Amino acid sequence: MPPPIVSIVSKKNSGKTTLLEKLIPELKRRGYRVGIIKHDTHGFDIDHEGKDSWRHKQAGADTVAISSPWKISVIKDVVKEYGVDEIVARYFANEDIVITEGYKKAGKPQIEVFRSTAHNSPLHTKEQPNTLIAVVSDVPIDLNVPWFDINDVVSIAQFIEKTFLENKGGYQ
Amino acid sequence: MPPPIVSIVSKKNSGKTTLLEKLIPELKRRGYRVGIIKHDTHGFDIDHEGKDSWRHKQAGADTVAISSPWKISVIKDVVKEYGVDEIVARYFANEDIVITEGYKKAGKPQIEVFRSTAHNSPLHTKEQPNTLIAVVSDVPIDLNVPWFDINDVVSIAQFIEKTFLENKGGYQ
Repeated sequence: MPPPIVSIVSKKNSGKTTLLEKLIPELKRRGYRVGIIKHDTHGFDIDHEGKDSWRHKQAGADTVAISSPWKISVIKDVVKEYGVDEIVARYFANEDIVITEGYKKAGKPQIEVFRSTAHNSPLHTKEQPNTLIAVVSDVPIDLNVPWFDINDVVSIAQFIEKTFLENKGGYQ
Repeated sequence: MPPPIVSIVSKKNSGKTTLLEKLIPELKRRGYRVGIIKHDTHGFDIDHEGKDSWRHKQAGADTVAISSPWKISVIKDVVKEYGVDEIVARYFANEDIVITEGYKKAGKPQIEVFRSTAHNSPLHTKEQPNTLIAVVSDVPIDLNVPWFDINDVVSIAQFIEKTFLENKGGYQ
């Protein structure tokens, strides 16, 4: 059963958000998990501090969303961190490819970025058994996998396309 | 089939986000829908301009997420605006109640907020057949539904509890 839905409506600037800022903690105090959806008919750039959804979240809402004709943004408290596969299943089902920034331990195929100006050695070594499929750096480096210059984005994209997207459509 | 996943990893401050800012448009140019998940092991306050996920989104990613042990935030472009029921089914399944701010035309039970200092008359009238279930205002007003003082948040919460949450648990 989906949760019940009630809409707080008004003419402009009648204080819906101010009311919700008081109502959310009162409902939380009574032991309920509270979700808030803000309808933004005009579109929005990004949810940030001071905006309504931020105020809803700060007031204790468990999940807040802001929905416009072009974009939806959701912020949700979790009790247990979602794994990568769970995140992809929930939120990325329509994408052709998902690239994670980080998630060294998730066991997914990895491309390491190495800058010799930032560190003396990469994360991975030649010997270490791992899921490394390529290395991208400012200096040539041999980790028994294809190497790409960090500025050669076309070749990196081509490698990703060949490795993961051959049967996915796109324009190639 | 879920989309393929590839992880960009590195030691700290090696320029993963900078690389992604170039890689995302290159993959978009090739016709793919691209999702980006940033792993934030330290937690985050909110996604906002200048932060990594904002940079991913600006670079053209269709869906971006930032995941920490306590919170997940997702921003997704949509081709067609999601309806309230769809949003609730996708993102609010675990909540006890969902309150929308706005969505006058969604056909859900409505509570109108009216401030006599802001407007001369409320949205709803007595005669109009509608889904109004209560009115909340700074002056008593008769719309053939229960009226609550805008500052009496306890009574408003009680009304919502009685109307929607009687069998939902909570502490009552």
